[in-house]
Amino acid sequence: MKTATASWTRKHLLGLQELSAEEITMILDQAAEFQEMAARGEPKIDALSGTVVANLFFEPSTRTKMSFSLAAKRLSADTLDFTAAASSLSKGETFVDTARNIEAMGVDQVVVRHATSGAPLLLSKKLKASVINAGDGMHEHPTQALLDLFTIRQHRGSIAGLTVTLVGDILHSRVARSNIWALKKLGARVIVCGPSTLIPPHIEALGVEVSNSLDEVLSETDCINLLRIQFERQRSAFFPSIREYAHFFGMNGDRIRKAKKDVLILAPGPINRGVELTPDVADGNHSVILDQVTNGLLVRMAVLYLIHQRRQLSADEHPERSHQGTITGATT
Amino acid sequence: MKTATASWTRKHLLGLQELSAEEITMILDQAAEFQEMAARGEPKIDALSGTVVANLFFEPSTRTKMSFSLAAKRLSADTLDFTAAASSLSKGETFVDTARNIEAMGVDQVVVRHATSGAPLLLSKKLKASVINAGDGMHEHPTQALLDLFTIRQHRGSIAGLTVTLVGDILHSRVARSNIWALKKLGARVIVCGPSTLIPPHIEALGVEVSNSLDEVLSETDCINLLRIQFERQRSAFFPSIREYAHFFGMNGDRIRKAKKDVLILAPGPINRGVELTPDVADGNHSVILDQVTNGLLVRMAVLYLIHQRRQLSADEHPERSHQGTITGATT
Amino acid sequence: MKTATASWTRKHLLGLQELSAEEITMILDQAAEFQEMAARGEPKIDALSGTVVANLFFEPSTRTKMSFSLAAKRLSADTLDFTAAASSLSKGETFVDTARNIEAMGVDQVVVRHATSGAPLLLSKKLKASVINAGDGMHEHPTQALLDLFTIRQHRGSIAGLTVTLVGDILHSRVARSNIWALKKLGARVIVCGPSTLIPPHIEALGVEVSNSLDEVLSETDCINLLRIQFERQRSAFFPSIREYAHFFGMNGDRIRKAKKDVLILAPGPINRGVELTPDVADGNHSVILDQVTNGLLVRMAVLYLIHQRRQLSADEHPERSHQGTITGATT
Repeated sequence: MKTATASWTRKHLLGLQELSAEEITMILDQAAEFQEMAARGEPKIDALSGTVVANLFFEPSTRTKMSFSLAAKRLSADTLDFTAAASSLSKGETFVDTARNIEAMGVDQVVVRHATSGAPLLLSKKLKASVINAGDGMHEHPTQALLDLFTIRQHRGSIAGLTVTLVGDILHSRVARSNIWALKKLGARVIVCGPSTLIPPHIEALGVEVSNSLDEVLSETDCINLLRIQFERQRSAFFPSIREYAHFFGMNGDRIRKAKKDVLILAPGPINRGVELTPDVADGNHSVILDQVTNGLLVRMAVLYLIHQRRQLSADEHPERSHQGTITGATT
Repeated sequence: MKTATASWTRKHLLGLQELSAEEITMILDQAAEFQEMAARGEPKIDALSGTVVANLFFEPSTRTKMSFSLAAKRLSADTLDFTAAASSLSKGETFVDTARNIEAMGVDQVVVRHATSGAPLLLSKKLKASVINAGDGMHEHPTQALLDLFTIRQHRGSIAGLTVTLVGDILHSRVARSNIWALKKLGARVIVCGPSTLIPPHIEALGVEVSNSLDEVLSETDCINLLRIQFERQRSAFFPSIREYAHFFGMNGDRIRKAKKDVLILAPGPINRGVELTPDVADGNHSVILDQVTNGLLVRMAVLYLIHQRRQLSADEHPERSHQGTITGATT
Repeated sequence: MKTATASWTRKHLLGLQELSAEEITMILDQAAEFQEMAARGEPKIDALSGTVVANLFFEPSTRTKMSFSLAAKRLSADTLDFTAAASSLSKGETFVDTARNIEAMGVDQVVVRHATSGAPLLLSKKLKASVINAGDGMHEHPTQALLDLFTIRQHRGSIAGLTVTLVGDILHSRVARSNIWALKKLGARVIVCGPSTLIPPHIEALGVEVSNSLDEVLSETDCINLLRIQFERQRSAFFPSIREYAHFFGMNGDRIRKAKKDVLILAPGPINRGVELTPDVADGNHSVILDQVTNGLLVRMAVLYLIHQRRQLSADEHPERSHQGTITGATT
C-alpha cells in the first residue's frame, strides 16, 4: 500500500472542491485495493489499531454513520459514537466544546455531520484531530460523491468522457455539489436536471449544463444519479406535487427504454420507491444502488486509512505534536 | 468442533418448527462446547473474525439484542446495530430496502426482530446474508426456546421423558410456540396451562395437553416455564385482574411445596415479581432464571457459529457466491 | 505493572471515602503508567481480553459513559451499554433484576450511574461482578475526583500541601464530596466556596474550610475547581440569578490576575461559558479542563485494570468462585 499513501498530504477531508483530480483518484485507488483485499478474504486489517475514530453526528443519520463506524472497525480502530439533536452554530461555542471534549479522550479522527455548512471546517481549525466531513448543510458530502464515482468507475472503467446527469433537488443538495466538483475534475460532462425552482441560478459557472427536462437529456446520458426528494422540505414550496415530480423527473421503465442501453442508475438513498424511481428500475439491471452502499464502506476505509498514514508520517517528523505525547492543556 | 458442524446445513434460523431433533441437538451440543471452553478460560474465539453480524430490531428489546451482540463479539465478529420504531409490513418495501442496504455494507448474518410474523422469512428470500429470527410477531422466538431447552438439559441431563408445563399467555406467545415445537421433537410431554381466554383453540393438534389449573398439573410437572404477562396487552381483555391471575397461575412458596421436589422454574423475563412468580420463588433454589440468561449467550453463539461454518463451506464450493467476491449490483 | 497491582485488594470502587491514601495513590500511579505507555505509542493492551464490562446508566450521561466505554476497549474488554430512563430505587427489585440479568450474560465489571445515592453499594451486595460507581445521587463520583487529582498531580508533582478551592454548588455535588474525601486524605487543604444556600451546614466536620467569597480566598488558592451550575435545579431556589452567580463566583480575567501566578483552573464539565468561567479563562493558560478529560480515560483504565487483576488473583485462589466456572442458578 506504499504507492497510494506516499503522496497523500491532507490532514482533513472537508470537501472535494479543494481536491485535485490526482487526490480523488488516490482515494478511489485505495478503495479499490481494499476491494481486492476483501475479495481475497482479507476484509479486515489492523492499520488503525490503537487509534480512535469518533462519529459526531449533529444531524440524524443511519446509514452514513453505520458505514463510517464499520469502516473504522474494519481498520481495527476503536470507535466512539456521539449523536446530538440538531444544534445550530448560533451555539457555536458549545459545538466546539463538545468536539474538543470528545477529542480529549484521545480521538485521532473525527467524522462530523452537521446541519450548518462549514461546521467541519470550523472544527478542523479548533482540533488537533483530523476532521472528515460526513455532510454539512448544503455544502458538501464528499464520501457520498466518492462512492458514486467509485461505483461509476467500477462499471465503466473510468469517469473521463462520460455524461453524468444529476436529477432532482440540486438547490439544497450537498450530494450534488460534491458530485459536480469531483466529476468535473475527473473529466466528466455534468448535466443538472430538475424543476427550475430546484436549480440554483448561475450554476453553469461550475461548468455544468442545465436541463429542465429529463426526457430531453436521457439519450445523451451514461449515468443518472437520482437525488433524494426530501418531502419535509420540498413538498409545498418548490413543486406542485410528488406525483407531478415523479411524472417529469422519476425514472421508470419507459425512460429506461429510451435511455442508453448501458445507462447506470445511481441514487444516494434511502430511496422513495415510486417517486425518484419505480421499483422495477430500483431492482433492475441498470441499478447500481446497492453497489453504492457496498462501495461506501470501501471509500470511507480509504479516507480513514490515507489520513491515518499522513498523521503517522507527520508524527514521526514532529514527534512533539503527536497526540499521545502532548497533554498540555486547553490551548487552541 | 468438527463433529457438530459437519452436518449443519441450514443457511437461516427462522424457527424451530422446521428443525429436526438432530438439528436442535446439534445447536445445544455446540452451545455446551462453548460452555466448556468458557469454563476453561477461553470465552472468546476468533471464528467469525472479519465477518459482520447486523442486529435489525424493529421492535424494542434490551436483553435479546445485548445477548446477540455479545455473542457476536465473543466470536470476534464486527457488529452493526439498527433499531427502528415499530414498522408494519404494510410498508414491506421499506423494510426490505432497509435490510438490503444494511446487508450491502458487507453483512454476513442478519439478526432480525419484527412485530410481524413472517418478517424473517421474507428477508431470507430477499437477502444473500443469513437470517436469524430474534422474535417475529406471535410466530417464533427460536433462540429463547433453545436456551430454555439448554437450561433444562443442563440440570436434568436430557429432555426426553420430562413433563414441561408452559404457564400463562399461550395465545400471544412466540416463546410458547417455539418451546412447543422443540420440546415435542426432543420427546418431552408438554402441558399448556392458563386461563381459557389465553389458550388458542385446537392447540392440542400440536401434541400438547391443555389445563386451566396450575394446581392440577403441579405434581406431574418437572419444569415450569412462566411466560411473561404483558400488562399493556392483557390487563383488561383476557382476564379479570392481575391479582386474580397471580392467585390462580402465579408460582409461590405454597405451590413450590406441592410441586415435585426437584421442579425447575424457568421464566423468559423480564419477570414481574408478584405476578408470574413471587420473589422467594424467583430467588429460590428451584429457579434457573439467571442460568437461562447465561445460556442465551451460549446458544446464540452456537447458532451464529454453525451458520457461519455452513456459509464458509458453501463459499468454498461456490466461490462465485461468496459475499466478498461479488459486488454485482442490485439484483434480487 | 506488578508493583501497583500487588496490593490492590478491593473488588469494587464505590467511593473515595473508604479508600486509604495509599489506595488512591495506587490508582493514580497505575494511570500514570498507562499515560507513559500511550506516550510510547502503546495506547492499547489486551489485559481484559475475554472479559465484559457493562455500562449501566440509569441517568443520562454522554462523556462519562464514552470515557468508561473507551477505557474498557483500550484494555481489550468487550462492552455492553445499557441506558435507562431515570428510575428510582422505590422500584428497587426491578433495578437489581435488570443488573442481575445483564450480569448473567457473563459480565465481569459493572459501571453504574444512578440518581439514587447508594445504588452502586446495593448492587455490590447483589452481584458477583465488580461494581464501579460512575456517580450516584449526591453521594460520590469517584472517578471524576480521581481524574481531578491526577491532573493536579501532573501539573504540581503532588497534592500534599496544596490549597484546593471547590467553587459553586457544594450542596448537591457528588463531585465535591468525592474531591473532599480524596484531597484531604492526600494532604491538601480544601476550601469550599459558594453562596451560603449551596453550602451544606456542618460541612466543616469533613475537615474543609468554608468561604462565601471567591475573592477572599483567591490569593491563597493553588487549584480552583469550578463545579457545574445545573440550571434546571438551581436557577430559582438557591440564588437570585445566573448573572449574580457569575459576578460573585465566576472565574474571569480579573480574578485570574488576582490569583496565584500558577493557579490551575479545573472544571468537571460540560462548562457553561460565561457562568462558571469566561471563555478567556476556559481557553487560557491556567485551564487544565481538557487535560481532565484526557486523564479521565487513564484513571478509568486504571480502575478497571486494578479490579480485574484482583478478580483474577481471587479466581486463582478460589477457582470455584470464578465466573466462567459456575453456572449454578439464581442464588443470591
